Parts: sequence; C-alpha cells; structure tokens
Amino acid sequence: MTNELENKIIKYVEEQLSCSAHDLEHVFRVYNLALKISENDNVDLDVLRAAVLLHDIARIKEDADNTGNTNHADLGAVMAGKFLGTTEFPIDKIRSVEKCIRVHRFRTNMKPESIEEKILFDADKLDSVGAIGIARTFGWVGKHGCRIFYRPDDLEAYIMANMSGKWNGKIQDKHLHSAQIEFDIKLKHMSDLLYTEKAKKIAEERIAYFQSFMERLEEEIQGNF
Amino acid sequence: MTNELENKIIKYVEEQLSCSAHDLEHVFRVYNLALKISENDNVDLDVLRAAVLLHDIARIKEDADNTGNTNHADLGAVMAGKFLGTTEFPIDKIRSVEKCIRVHRFRTNMKPESIEEKILFDADKLDSVGAIGIARTFGWVGKHGCRIFYRPDDLEAYIMANMSGKWNGKIQDKHLHSAQIEFDIKLKHMSDLLYTEKAKKIAEERIAYFQSFMERLEEEIQGNF
Repeated sequence: MTNELENKIIKYVEEQLSCSAHDLEHVFRVYNLALKISENDNVDLDVLRAAVLLHDIARIKEDADNTGNTNHADLGAVMAGKFLGTTEFPIDKIRSVEKCIRVHRFRTNMKPESIEEKILFDADKLDSVGAIGIARTFGWVGKHGCRIFYRPDDLEAYIMANMSGKWNGKIQDKHLHSAQIEFDIKLKHMSDLLYTEKAKKIAEERIAYFQSFMERLEEEIQGNF
Repeated sequence: MTNELENKIIKYVEEQLSCSAHDLEHVFRVYNLALKISENDNVDLDVLRAAVLLHDIARIKEDADNTGNTNHADLGAVMAGKFLGTTEFPIDKIRSVEKCIRVHRFRTNMKPESIEEKILFDADKLDSVGAIGIARTFGWVGKHGCRIFYRPDDLEAYIMANMSGKWNGKIQDKHLHSAQIEFDIKLKHMSDLLYTEKAKKIAEERIAYFQSFMERLEEEIQGNF
C-alpha cells in the first residue's frame, strides 16, 4: 500500500470519527500494536493496516442508534468495502479487509480465522488492559458517574442483580458499578479470549500491571501508602 | 469525640454530599490519610476528624453556583460551625474546625498554621496523586472529554494560549487538554505545596508512581509494550 493511499484511508477514518477524538486515538494505538504483533510473521500488511484503520468507522453510528440494532462491525465492513472500492486498493484484498472488520467484535458469532483477522481482534482487545486500559476504564468511570473503587462481597450475586444475570455491557445502576468490577468481570480474563501467542503474552503482562495498580489503589484508599 | 457524635457528623456530611458519591468517597480517603499522617504527633484528633469529615460539605453548592462567587472552603466553615453548634462538640474546638476548613483550599490567601490545619490541607492534596490520583485524573478526563494522552511541544505557550496565561482550573478547549498536561502543570509539583514532612514523603512516592505510569502509558501508546 502506498503512503498516498494510506493517507487517503486515514482522511476517510478521520471524517467518520470526527466527533470522537478518543476513538481516533484508539485506532492509532491499535495500529501501532497490530504492527508490533505482526513483526516477523507472514502477514499481508496491506490488509492489516487498512483493516485496523477502518475497523471502527461505524462506531459513531452504532452509538447514535438507540434501538441497539446497529452493529458497528457489520456496518463498518460494508462501509470499508464501499470506500476502498473507490480507491486503487486491490479488489481481492478488499474482501479480506471486510472480513477482518466483521469479526473484530467481542460479541459476535463469527470468529477470526486468518492471521490478519486474529491480529486486528487481539490488538483491539489489548487496548483495554495495561496502563492504557487503566486510563480508559477510569475515563469510563468518570463519564458514567460510576465509583472509583467498589467490590461487591458477592460478585455473582451482583451480576445477577444488576446485569440481568450476564455481562452485556449494560449496567442497570451505574452508581453501583466500579472499575474494580469491570476488571474482575471482564478485563482480567482478557488473555483467554485472544488468538495469537504474542498478544496473549502482552495481555498477561498488561493484566498483571492492571492488577497491581488496583491493589495499590485499595491500599491508598485505606490510607496505607 | 464519641462514636455517636462522629456518626452524627458523618450522617450530616452524607446529606450535604448526597448527590455526589465521589466526593463522599474522597472524604473517607482523606480521613484515612489524615489519621495516618497524624500518628505519633501531638494532634487534636477531635478537631482533625471533624474537620476532615466536614471539609467539603459546601462543594455541591460551589459547583452549582455558576457565578463563581461561592467558595466551598469559606461557606463550608460557616456550615460546619453552625452544625457542630447543635451538637455537644466543645465550643472552643468548633472555632478550630472552622479554621481548618477555611484554609484547606489550594487557591486561598490564608495559609494553614495549626498542625490540624496542615494535616487536613496535606491529606486533601495527597488524594490527587498516586494510584488514586491517576484514577481521579482519568475520571476527570473521561467526564470532560479531554484527551488520554497529549503533550504540547511547548507547554508554556499552551498555557498562555489556552488558560489565559495562568493555571486557573478553567480550560478554554477541553479537547486540547489531557491527563499529561494536568500532571505536568500541577500534580508533579504537589509536594512543594505541602506543609508536613510526612505528607511530603508520601507525595514524592506517589508522584514518582504517577510519573512511571505516564511513561508506561506513552510506551504502550507507541506499541512498545
């Protein structure tokens, strides 16, 4: 892929995410991570780079649709295919990019198969752990008025009572929710969900860092630091 | 101070901060820290405990006043004095509690003088650094839509352009602001502003932790972790 074409893709992504600077920063973080993970592997970098840059272009549309019927992975794949079709990007690679975007989402029935699909999926999830995961989790806590630190005595009972018995990303009472619960329910199990060995290794180190941060936070809250 | 009286004070604080769970959690963190700092020192714990619990009771009123004329330290001191006057809290100690609350604020002309005033001031500021400072800073970033990571090439020029030449807590364009800027402008110089040696030591360790977190964050963003 030429620099010129990549810049054209970036310009299109910036337009789609223009009201969400955070999402755009996420895209560039995932880009750097994906290139790191793909080092020394036999990866189609044209497909990977285009897929990473375009993977969240329908995020704003999903967020704006209150019916919950818009899936940004499916819609993003369609939008990406249409956009790349207007460029000199090779037609057979467009299909691969579409597939990468379609399967990058957590809650989906389709699983990543190709190495490019797996790397996009993994790099995207890695942005939820480590120092960046801490920054994003507490940003989310601040935005939604959740609690900085709260660990229910019985996490299973908490999930049953507040999340209709399963983790679906929706919390009935945000004031009861906390970064610790996010970590315990979702983030600390992250590495089990990844596909590539390199990403699993990065995830484990990042999760350990997150865990040590939460332990330190609890100590500080109790006045022990 | 009896447990019964302390519980009465806590109940009053909860009423005043009822729409702000975060502020209430902050109060209890500062309480734990203040007791830690006061260990082995000749401190009037009645004054300190009452002052810590009551120090932010006018916070909601300051936030709700769009004219900017309400100072939660001055108003809080008056409210605390009135409230304690309805209890069996000794009258001479009420004056000390009022003074503690009046001088706990950063931007004020009056400085802490007594040991209780210094400990409340210091413990309150310590809640802005360390892991809890990271959690609160990114919570603020998320709430106000600031950027997770952004460091202007020229910080002085940034301050001149975006904060009318001085740090006044108001940012003209929140999308330009970031956790890194908050840290560079304010948080990393925190220990210079504190009064007690114990708090300075805690602050220095917490600031070093914050610094290492930001360095790791930058590495992760560049895909190096």
